Amino acid sequence: MKAVRVHEYHSDPKIDDIPEPELQGPLDVIVKIGGAGVCRTDLHIVNGDWAEAMNPDLPYVIGHENAGWVHAVGDGVTNVQVGDTVILHPQPSCGLCLACRAGKDMQCENAFFPGLSNNDGGMAEYLRTTARACVKLDPNTNPADVAALADAGITAYHAVRKAVPALHPGTTAVVQGAGGLGHIGIQTLAAITGTRIVVVDRNPDALALAKQIGADETVEANGTHVDAVLDLTNGKGGDVVFDFVAEQGAENDAWKMTAPAGYMYVIGYGGQFTAPTLDFVAGEKNVIGNIVGTYNDLAELMVLAQAGKVTLHTKQYPLDAALDALHDLDAGRVRGRAILVP
Amino acid sequence: MKAVRVHEYHSDPKIDDIPEPELQGPLDVIVKIGGAGVCRTDLHIVNGDWAEAMNPDLPYVIGHENAGWVHAVGDGVTNVQVGDTVILHPQPSCGLCLACRAGKDMQCENAFFPGLSNNDGGMAEYLRTTARACVKLDPNTNPADVAALADAGITAYHAVRKAVPALHPGTTAVVQGAGGLGHIGIQTLAAITGTRIVVVDRNPDALALAKQIGADETVEANGTHVDAVLDLTNGKGGDVVFDFVAEQGAENDAWKMTAPAGYMYVIGYGGQFTAPTLDFVAGEKNVIGNIVGTYNDLAELMVLAQAGKVTLHTKQYPLDAALDALHDLDAGRVRGRAILVP
Amino acid sequence: MKAVRVHEYHSDPKIDDIPEPELQGPLDVIVKIGGAGVCRTDLHIVNGDWAEAMNPDLPYVIGHENAGWVHAVGDGVTNVQVGDTVILHPQPSCGLCLACRAGKDMQCENAFFPGLSNNDGGMAEYLRTTARACVKLDPNTNPADVAALADAGITAYHAVRKAVPALHPGTTAVVQGAGGLGHIGIQTLAAITGTRIVVVDRNPDALALAKQIGADETVEANGTHVDAVLDLTNGKGGDVVFDFVAEQGAENDAWKMTAPAGYMYVIGYGGQFTAPTLDFVAGEKNVIGNIVGTYNDLAELMVLAQAGKVTLHTKQYPLDAALDALHDLDAGRVRGRAILVP
Amino acid sequence: MKAVRVHEYHSDPKIDDIPEPELQGPLDVIVKIGGAGVCRTDLHIVNGDWAEAMNPDLPYVIGHENAGWVHAVGDGVTNVQVGDTVILHPQPSCGLCLACRAGKDMQCENAFFPGLSNNDGGMAEYLRTTARACVKLDPNTNPADVAALADAGITAYHAVRKAVPALHPGTTAVVQGAGGLGHIGIQTLAAITGTRIVVVDRNPDALALAKQIGADETVEANGTHVDAVLDLTNGKGGDVVFDFVAEQGAENDAWKMTAPAGYMYVIGYGGQFTAPTLDFVAGEKNVIGNIVGTYNDLAELMVLAQAGKVTLHTKQYPLDAALDALHDLDAGRVRGRAILVP
Repeated sequence: MKAVRVHEYHSDPKIDDIPEPELQGPLDVIVKIGGAGVCRTDLHIVNGDWAEAMNPDLPYVIGHENAGWVHAVGDGVTNVQVGDTVILHPQPSCGLCLACRAGKDMQCENAFFPGLSNNDGGMAEYLRTTARACVKLDPNTNPADVAALADAGITAYHAVRKAVPALHPGTTAVVQGAGGLGHIGIQTLAAITGTRIVVVDRNPDALALAKQIGADETVEANGTHVDAVLDLTNGKGGDVVFDFVAEQGAENDAWKMTAPAGYMYVIGYGGQFTAPTLDFVAGEKNVIGNIVGTYNDLAELMVLAQAGKVTLHTKQYPLDAALDALHDLDAGRVRGRAILVP
Repeated sequence: MKAVRVHEYHSDPKIDDIPEPELQGPLDVIVKIGGAGVCRTDLHIVNGDWAEAMNPDLPYVIGHENAGWVHAVGDGVTNVQVGDTVILHPQPSCGLCLACRAGKDMQCENAFFPGLSNNDGGMAEYLRTTARACVKLDPNTNPADVAALADAGITAYHAVRKAVPALHPGTTAVVQGAGGLGHIGIQTLAAITGTRIVVVDRNPDALALAKQIGADETVEANGTHVDAVLDLTNGKGGDVVFDFVAEQGAENDAWKMTAPAGYMYVIGYGGQFTAPTLDFVAGEKNVIGNIVGTYNDLAELMVLAQAGKVTLHTKQYPLDAALDALHDLDAGRVRGRAILVP
Repeated sequence: MKAVRVHEYHSDPKIDDIPEPELQGPLDVIVKIGGAGVCRTDLHIVNGDWAEAMNPDLPYVIGHENAGWVHAVGDGVTNVQVGDTVILHPQPSCGLCLACRAGKDMQCENAFFPGLSNNDGGMAEYLRTTARACVKLDPNTNPADVAALADAGITAYHAVRKAVPALHPGTTAVVQGAGGLGHIGIQTLAAITGTRIVVVDRNPDALALAKQIGADETVEANGTHVDAVLDLTNGKGGDVVFDFVAEQGAENDAWKMTAPAGYMYVIGYGGQFTAPTLDFVAGEKNVIGNIVGTYNDLAELMVLAQAGKVTLHTKQYPLDAALDALHDLDAGRVRGRAILVP
Repeated sequence: MKAVRVHEYHSDPKIDDIPEPELQGPLDVIVKIGGAGVCRTDLHIVNGDWAEAMNPDLPYVIGHENAGWVHAVGDGVTNVQVGDTVILHPQPSCGLCLACRAGKDMQCENAFFPGLSNNDGGMAEYLRTTARACVKLDPNTNPADVAALADAGITAYHAVRKAVPALHPGTTAVVQGAGGLGHIGIQTLAAITGTRIVVVDRNPDALALAKQIGADETVEANGTHVDAVLDLTNGKGGDVVFDFVAEQGAENDAWKMTAPAGYMYVIGYGGQFTAPTLDFVAGEKNVIGNIVGTYNDLAELMVLAQAGKVTLHTKQYPLDAALDALHDLDAGRVRGRAILVP
């Protein structure tokens, strides 16, 4: 089959012809890929940024945002059948450790992450995953339309979902960064809470779009944005600030935009957060970490997607054009999400 | 009456003879002081550390950890009567703003803080406070025995109480700093949770005492303590780390001792917390701010105190010897809490 | 002033000319009534149903759903001034007991309930209440437009607000009873959750209206409605069932419509709930009680109302026509809420 | 192997010689039984009380409270190995449905319950279960010592664990029924909360024992017990009432003993609960259902057991003497729990 493989860091991946993956255990599932999202993390992988942490054997197939159809199942698989349309949670988990049993999939002690850890990913015709990663979809769903929700989507959804108890009517949520994840975050906030939504971004077009999908107020990130947010909140700041940027100083702006007893949710990464411990005491302010969402988050997000409450603009590329997609993403030429279709 | 007043920063306070405070509004309460705790914050005030933030008119009376007997009440006061034995929440709140009504006393929009803000405190024979600050006690209680719970006590209690849902059997709580607040934190953990308690401190005597009051494990803070805590927790760290130090680098040790999906509770202050935003994402770790507890926290802590589950060693000084108490505290000669008795 | 007073049970109230209420304590507030809602509970009072529980001295003024303008304030009142437009929480609370301080206004140990307990209510030109009952409104608000939210509104809002953590996308909420309270409940569900909303009522017109304001599915209560709800939920029932009826057997239907591990919220009353204790064990099902909402609920609901997310049809009557309003309500001739305007 | 089988209802089971169970799927585990608890539910099964609900093919092996050693594993099992000492969650769950993934094992859509549903139980030399039911123990643990925690234990633990947020210092928990489950409930309350514990039972010996293991107050259930509990709680009742009886009217006593805004936890069964819906409204009181605990509850309870904080008196019988054990239980001759040891 065709697959997009990284052969060496700092070089473009190649489109190789390799054997199809095979079932290795009774809970394995082989999925025929219908759509594979192209993520900024893929650029990081190519640049070697994850080499030390994940240390995969090269060459390997990237792609961790996948949907398609079940192609083969191990003899212990009971939840999906060959032919089912599925979207895949990116990190197959064991279902046996205490974390899995408490619903904390991402803290699973025995998980792997195809396309990131030392396991082939989904920019290919077929992918090996496991039963616990498969969310069954309406058979009429086109996998390429939803693939981006498998990783980008649930990351944004997960953060908003956790914050719901702090976002009753009368509160203000600040969204810093109205890119792909922020876009889903804003729609989710509008769909499942009664909070006021203030969106901060450098890009006026992104802010205009934010207004259309649920933002109550928008603020251009032009250096006066912290004060602008404070002005919109009687000098207090947001009750919850979702930082989808979290680099280049944005993370410290986010902290200043957080109200007393409020929560700063870190979703982006790359920066260095710094604050005097007195800030945590005098203001009783909090910083909340956020990783990729759970399987149930993915199932819930699909409910919103199928109801049309969360949508994402995508641009499809044939699998053969994977390098175009990666280059377009790197150059800022992708609006929404690039999706590879084998 | 006699009162301990700061006349200028960086100089010892003086014992002055000043008029007794008077009722200023219908909800005011004048309390005859039975015991006033001496806190490290008082040393900071004398050093001018709070001058900018609070900007009190000098001279003014310090002392924010008070208990005694009701001496006079305004005509709108219904919850206490002259003669009642009371312990005082340190920050009288309005009871009218949304924060007060949600049980978040310390986020009250109209509060003051006698002995810290521009209001005379309790190192004196009498103090002016309000009805909402008074917790009525059993008339046989000696105010000097419990005064330290009014501020130090509820600060530690508040943090532990918030963490209860994360501290079920099978978890590990790490307490960094076994001084006055840590002491109350350890006893509270033992009294109201089923977690395993690991205590970290530089002082072997403090660790020995910690063992007696509920610590399951103790770790000397000698440079290898982060690794020692990781060893005690299968390499993961504490599910909740209570940092009662939070200065001189301890705050960054606390972060390293925090498990994935765990919580670092900041209670001490003085240091600078720094972490890559990636830490919050990859580990889904959290930092929780903590201020002084609420009125209800104080009421609950008194229940534990009266049941003998939380105790605090105190050393009493006559009000006239206030400077001795302050000097002893500064020199590390106070075991437990110094209490001034008028 | 004019006032609607009950002189004896089982007889129509009378429009009397009585002295205006006066300030009795430093926290009292006299409000000039701009609108007073007419509630089914008023009919119950007239029928003597509350005589034993509340035992008021007759004659007394009824009316517990009030909004207007501040007319006079006691000398301890700091949150409102003469002339402010206000909506009134129906039960003035003390702000001093542990319940008040935990945000549980309705469990206040020292509360009273004008128009229900032995205190004159708001079907009059003026009403005596207290500072803690006043929610300040935008001065342009017409009190008669919002008065119904003061009691009916917050009762429905309170129940929905409590249920939010159980109503994530993918769940189903069932609303039994689409009258005044149900109407607000449906709008609140649509505004602050991502749940699917199924509405059950006998009246096809009420169901048609429910569809317009947020219901995803409607079911006519014609004897097959329990099965219809089960059919809509894969045989499971609603994750939360809000029973705004709770009499004449509806309460037992609600239980049958509640899913395993789900919650039945009782908001209406009058019936007798009966279930084998085995139901609670085998299905791990729960029954949740609900009283009038808190002050903060009222403040939050006003945010939704001012954003146009929750609206209520009202029909205004002059105060002199109070008996018409009561008779119209009794005869089922009021659509939405009847409001008396002095 | 030997096994205790029900051949027909209303007759004593028989000790049969039957083939050992075999692996049927890749996730199956065969356990050599070290101890099987004898539960009142076994008497109910023999009496045919579960015939309609479970409809097992007779004869079948009873016994749902089991611990032992792993004897064989399917080829998909990764969490235990042959020879491991294990205690078994009574209801093997799928790990794939939304309920399992949210940590709600008992709401699993694909579970079975050996010894209760149509599957052979553990009063035998060997039992077939699945990987997800196995909690690995310290190899030195004697299975017969802990088996009773597998069902009775986690049922009591689960209820207390859920109630923790409502049981802060200053609250009162009432335990109705100090038998086997109540015994574990009392110890758990003492171990993981700071509430005051009031125990109600008919049997003075049970009350004396309750005092030794953590009860603060005891009340004899002699007809005046509802009033006695109200007297102990300023007329309010318990903030949480755990009803381990829930039959013969105890369920309605429990309701009367529940404070306003409090929770009645139903754990026992057999009775009929009845209350006016007005009770739920006026008092904002709640009824909480409780089923067997989760796998994680079992793991947590083992932590308390291994720390000696929860203990249970047991009486061992050889497997051949199973009928003696059943008869002794039926006649009230078993103190603590009867355990069969093959």
